[in-house]
Amino acid sequence: MELRNNLQTTTGWEIIETGFDPQQIVATGSNLMIGNGYLGYRGTFAEWEADQFVACIVTDTYDRAEGGRLRELCNVPNALFTQLFVDDDLLTATEDQISGYQRGLDLRYGRYHRTMHWQSSQGVAVALRTERFASLDNHHLIAMRYRFEADKDTQLVLITGIDGRVWSLNGEHLQDYHLIETEGTIAIETTTVEFGIKIDVVEGLHITGSEPVENDIVREDRRILRRIVFDVAAGQLIEIQKLVGIYTSNDVDDPFDTAVDGVLQAVAGGYEALEVKHQKRWDTIWRDVDIQIEGNLEDQVITRFNLYHNIIHTPTHARLPIGARGLSCQVYQGAAFWDQEIFNLPMFIYTWPAVARNILAYRYDTLDGARAKARRLGYQGAYYAWTSGKTGKELFPDYFFIDVLSGRKLHNHFNSWQIHISPDIVYAIWQYYQATGDQDFIVQYGAEIAFEVARFIVSRIHLKKDKNRYELLRVIGPDEYHEGVDNNAFTNYQARLALSVALECHQMLQAHAPDQLRALMARLELGEEAVGDWQDIVDRIYLPQPDEETHLIEQFDGYFQLEDTRPDVIRQRLKHPEEYWGWPIGIAVETQVIKQGDVVQLLALHDDFPYEVIQANFDYYEVRTEHGSSLSPSVHALVAAKAGYNDRAYAYFRESATIDLYATSKKVMSGGSFLGGIHTAACGATWQIIVQGFAGLKVEQDCLILQPALPTSWTSLGFRVYYRSNLLTLTITRTSVAVESVVGNREAITVQVGAASNVLQPGDEAHFTL
Amino acid sequence: MELRNNLQTTTGWEIIETGFDPQQIVATGSNLMIGNGYLGYRGTFAEWEADQFVACIVTDTYDRAEGGRLRELCNVPNALFTQLFVDDDLLTATEDQISGYQRGLDLRYGRYHRTMHWQSSQGVAVALRTERFASLDNHHLIAMRYRFEADKDTQLVLITGIDGRVWSLNGEHLQDYHLIETEGTIAIETTTVEFGIKIDVVEGLHITGSEPVENDIVREDRRILRRIVFDVAAGQLIEIQKLVGIYTSNDVDDPFDTAVDGVLQAVAGGYEALEVKHQKRWDTIWRDVDIQIEGNLEDQVITRFNLYHNIIHTPTHARLPIGARGLSCQVYQGAAFWDQEIFNLPMFIYTWPAVARNILAYRYDTLDGARAKARRLGYQGAYYAWTSGKTGKELFPDYFFIDVLSGRKLHNHFNSWQIHISPDIVYAIWQYYQATGDQDFIVQYGAEIAFEVARFIVSRIHLKKDKNRYELLRVIGPDEYHEGVDNNAFTNYQARLALSVALECHQMLQAHAPDQLRALMARLELGEEAVGDWQDIVDRIYLPQPDEETHLIEQFDGYFQLEDTRPDVIRQRLKHPEEYWGWPIGIAVETQVIKQGDVVQLLALHDDFPYEVIQANFDYYEVRTEHGSSLSPSVHALVAAKAGYNDRAYAYFRESATIDLYATSKKVMSGGSFLGGIHTAACGATWQIIVQGFAGLKVEQDCLILQPALPTSWTSLGFRVYYRSNLLTLTITRTSVAVESVVGNREAITVQVGAASNVLQPGDEAHFTL
Repeated sequence: MELRNNLQTTTGWEIIETGFDPQQIVATGSNLMIGNGYLGYRGTFAEWEADQFVACIVTDTYDRAEGGRLRELCNVPNALFTQLFVDDDLLTATEDQISGYQRGLDLRYGRYHRTMHWQSSQGVAVALRTERFASLDNHHLIAMRYRFEADKDTQLVLITGIDGRVWSLNGEHLQDYHLIETEGTIAIETTTVEFGIKIDVVEGLHITGSEPVENDIVREDRRILRRIVFDVAAGQLIEIQKLVGIYTSNDVDDPFDTAVDGVLQAVAGGYEALEVKHQKRWDTIWRDVDIQIEGNLEDQVITRFNLYHNIIHTPTHARLPIGARGLSCQVYQGAAFWDQEIFNLPMFIYTWPAVARNILAYRYDTLDGARAKARRLGYQGAYYAWTSGKTGKELFPDYFFIDVLSGRKLHNHFNSWQIHISPDIVYAIWQYYQATGDQDFIVQYGAEIAFEVARFIVSRIHLKKDKNRYELLRVIGPDEYHEGVDNNAFTNYQARLALSVALECHQMLQAHAPDQLRALMARLELGEEAVGDWQDIVDRIYLPQPDEETHLIEQFDGYFQLEDTRPDVIRQRLKHPEEYWGWPIGIAVETQVIKQGDVVQLLALHDDFPYEVIQANFDYYEVRTEHGSSLSPSVHALVAAKAGYNDRAYAYFRESATIDLYATSKKVMSGGSFLGGIHTAACGATWQIIVQGFAGLKVEQDCLILQPALPTSWTSLGFRVYYRSNLLTLTITRTSVAVESVVGNREAITVQVGAASNVLQPGDEAHFTL
Repeated sequence: MELRNNLQTTTGWEIIETGFDPQQIVATGSNLMIGNGYLGYRGTFAEWEADQFVACIVTDTYDRAEGGRLRELCNVPNALFTQLFVDDDLLTATEDQISGYQRGLDLRYGRYHRTMHWQSSQGVAVALRTERFASLDNHHLIAMRYRFEADKDTQLVLITGIDGRVWSLNGEHLQDYHLIETEGTIAIETTTVEFGIKIDVVEGLHITGSEPVENDIVREDRRILRRIVFDVAAGQLIEIQKLVGIYTSNDVDDPFDTAVDGVLQAVAGGYEALEVKHQKRWDTIWRDVDIQIEGNLEDQVITRFNLYHNIIHTPTHARLPIGARGLSCQVYQGAAFWDQEIFNLPMFIYTWPAVARNILAYRYDTLDGARAKARRLGYQGAYYAWTSGKTGKELFPDYFFIDVLSGRKLHNHFNSWQIHISPDIVYAIWQYYQATGDQDFIVQYGAEIAFEVARFIVSRIHLKKDKNRYELLRVIGPDEYHEGVDNNAFTNYQARLALSVALECHQMLQAHAPDQLRALMARLELGEEAVGDWQDIVDRIYLPQPDEETHLIEQFDGYFQLEDTRPDVIRQRLKHPEEYWGWPIGIAVETQVIKQGDVVQLLALHDDFPYEVIQANFDYYEVRTEHGSSLSPSVHALVAAKAGYNDRAYAYFRESATIDLYATSKKVMSGGSFLGGIHTAACGATWQIIVQGFAGLKVEQDCLILQPALPTSWTSLGFRVYYRSNLLTLTITRTSVAVESVVGNREAITVQVGAASNVLQPGDEAHFTL
């Protein structure tokens, strides 16, 4: 079927682009990319260079260039670089020279492909078919197959090798380029400027279909290339297999040797053998992660597109952050934000718990960074970085936005006042624990994080004695347009929850791991009176309550006194289209217009509000929300579903889930910043909207609850979840819910749908009528 | 002797302007004005109109025009308006037509005068001599004498009457102009738009020296004028006496009749008789207030200029605010700021205690306004208005400055975050009590103010439990460039002092007025536990301490982390000369550059810091201070004197004391706002610098202490002070201090100079050697 933007799908497992729009190369490069959590390779053409935003971003290569504004992941030399010439005429996609164009992404197996027929200026027609994948079996490998044939006897010149002239957002990260040729491979070894990480990109080549008449190595500035000349007959098919190995000194001690060995083995085994192993891995993942939608093929493929990206941008192999733009480019520094726990994580908690555990263990690994940040700002415990790279050191700069009217830098305080990041992580830990029952995680990691976050809150909070309540002052909630507010409802509720979790963890360890508790408390130098302080704050922290008449929860102290207007109204006040709307002088600051859901976000994460409160607040805040954050539509979808606003929930689902796929922006720069890349949080949120929104799945007191309300066009929804290590298969129609507890599960599970509940033994299947 | 700006003095009791500069009419109009605390009349020419900033500002006429930005005092119809014509040629000061020009102010008796010789275009020379005063005997009266003679026989046409076409800063305040003629007077009655205050301006005229050939009343738009024609002989002296009465319906029930009666009486009695009574009043005032400086005539006249203005702008007759620009124009709304207690008041405490009591009683009268403001902002007790008019309602607007780069209004928070105003008032009450011993004031007024301010602080403060201290968050200290700071040292020390005073008041009433205390506590619904709260905050409030090594006190949390630069450096960053330097995005916000003394202000008000702390902080902060406030040089003078920096103290004294007199600004508009008028705080500060700085006077534990350090050029300094109702005459030379306790004083007084101290009985004189 036809989708938007020259896209189509046939089975719901693929995205096929049937027309090429050179204005959309930023978006399509991201959308059609391949990746495996270790590296991401953009869906660009093999013949392209830095100007077309070709990039291969590798995890764990954080670097700050000299004079560079931000620390970010490196874009490493591009070893898929391949140009084919006929009479010095470069094969590429230009409007008047191509036909039969298709570029696509096979979501099932993470495979990019391009097909096209190209006519040289001399009248030679070349048929091209190329494919690539980033191996899930060996994360350091990318494989490309490049096949071509001409319609006439002719000479073809192929330039292929490693292009080290890479694009970088914030300065040059790589220095000391070594262009190396070994038996069977070519390589570039280079070193990052800040920490001296060695990066080795090695390429091996296998040619079939014709013996080259020339085959030379050419060295240029930051490039090592093969120049291969073929004299081909009409219709003679030539296939090049490129096998690329990428290692850094953060991965292994001898990255060059390891990469060379890997590439030589891969070349010896061949593309197909690698692909078989790669596909097996994908089969395993999709078995648990896939969502089947019947009745709407477009929603099916959109959904898989988002699940795919939430997978490939997550370093499932390691304890490293999920970048806000994943591995799709350097935007947002390849660093984790609160998005990671609140948006990316839930899918993994329920479909791939081992990865969820990794993601949260990453926060354990970065505790020292969080402790250092707290100390630097005058607090105790763990204050997590707003922008968190490998070590958890704060990567967010004090000055991020520019006042486009004056040209002056603006001092924003995301890194110092957006304190909800710490309780958000504890919230996520508790979500993980409730779904998985992984007590070992709590003992090993979770308790320490929760204790340190509790300690941070104790040192951050103020007691208002005259009102007998604790207050959190000068914070930023999810709505970033209003900085430095007091008693942000979202933040206060999250802080209280985090303290409750700390108390729960304390009890759990007391009961089940008293020695570890003693050791932990001693190591953290925490006394029992600290636990009393947590309880005191839990008892007395100010939680803005719904108004008895209007049911409204005030976003922060004084919010309702601000000018009550609408995004479209204040947009007229812009004097420059790129003005930042928020602090300190943006057009939204003095108004009730918010960037994204804030009280709505609270309603998304906390299930204890009555229906009328959810509805009233959704109605009130929705119209005041600019959705200036890509996180906003998804949370509105989720809460609209909770509120019973099915049409609105579906509309927001579509908006959120197509934020990248249907992006149509000629503009890639904003206020001096490159914008682009995959909104990984929106990808993760797609799973949440469907499973936690439309299917209404939640866990409460040892019970799995479903409250489904499918979008009108969907006839059936199927997915799987893990609940405390038991795998369940769920199939929801408009009138029924079928739940199967997979044979081999370890225990009985209680499932509740509406008023009915059922205890399923392993192998049982339960049917509920809606 | 010659001063600057075409000014000279002979005896130190007068300012004479010997050349007229039309560019300086805003400044000279203020400097040479007359006034009596009820009204102020600018030192402009009688023939001038609104364009030349003629104004007669009357107390207690607060009004907000329709659509007007600010509530302010009214500029009432100008009844001194007088134009003299020869052949339709207007007598006025134009460069090529005048000679022998002198305009002056007799400070001794508050008398303005002008002399000049004028040549008409037809060659007739006219000699003019005019004088005026605002009666101190009857505050509703202004008297003018206007004498002229021609050097030829000629016809002179005099237009004199009441010009109601007045200038106003923020819209039209007056409506319903009634032009009235009665037997012997003409009048304009008009009504303010907001509260409907009736304002009556009545004029009576007395002519001697010639019988007019014509004498008609002319009515024009908002004007009632007399057209008087004289046929004069060469050398024939004509004298006009104009007697003007001004009353409003806030003064009396029948302002028109009262004014007419007053004017008729005044006309009947004549100018000279009025002047005699007026002068007697001035004699009484100067006996106590004057400061005699020998060795430097310029400093003598500058000092008297400042004392004069601190007197005439203070409503000594009533319990009304002292305007930040007094009665010199409408700038700052004729309203009181903290300037009133901290800068204007001390002179009155020591030289005219009854007025000091009035000034503080005004704060008692406005308690309800302060209570309402506290309530509106969510607090208890009394939060005084930053800009306080008659009722104490907050007059400061939320949006005051304009971002000149974008044209957008800036939301400043002087009215909501500059909380030190409340403790400042309590500080002043305690200063008053310590100097006067006026326990009755405490019982009647002071205790209630102190209790309500204490209650405000209790509701405003936060307890930081982890640090076991109270904190005041999100405040503005005296340095207004840094808004929303935490733990501003000045504010915290002042708050603690205010709570201590509340406790002292409580004890005092307990001991001396237990019934009143009971009644007061009951009326305020204050329990004894509230008193415990005050003590708890006194014990645990965070007072930023001097660093042990550097002795520096941090202005607020994080100040030392700001960019350390200098005013002249950041001035280069201005993109527009009129940019506001402060919140939210001014050039000073992210730096250590401050508008005015802040820690220095703390050192000025609190005497318990060791010498090295005073020096270190003065040195550190001085170079970072822009002196963007007129309050800044004076406090630097005072603290420089405390620090033993005599030369710097003297330089700042000169800067502060000449801020108006030597002003030379062609520009009178800034960021869309008229700037002008007398800096009354600087006037009051002149007394402080000399008496509390150079003479080093302070009161400590029933003892009057002097630590003199005279400026190098001064051979002798004489002044008088009241100490607990005893009048003392002090004479300080470079080597000695003489103190006389005036005969008739009521008790013995202990005076300490250096290490020596002496108990003086009434009539005693003590001599100390320095």
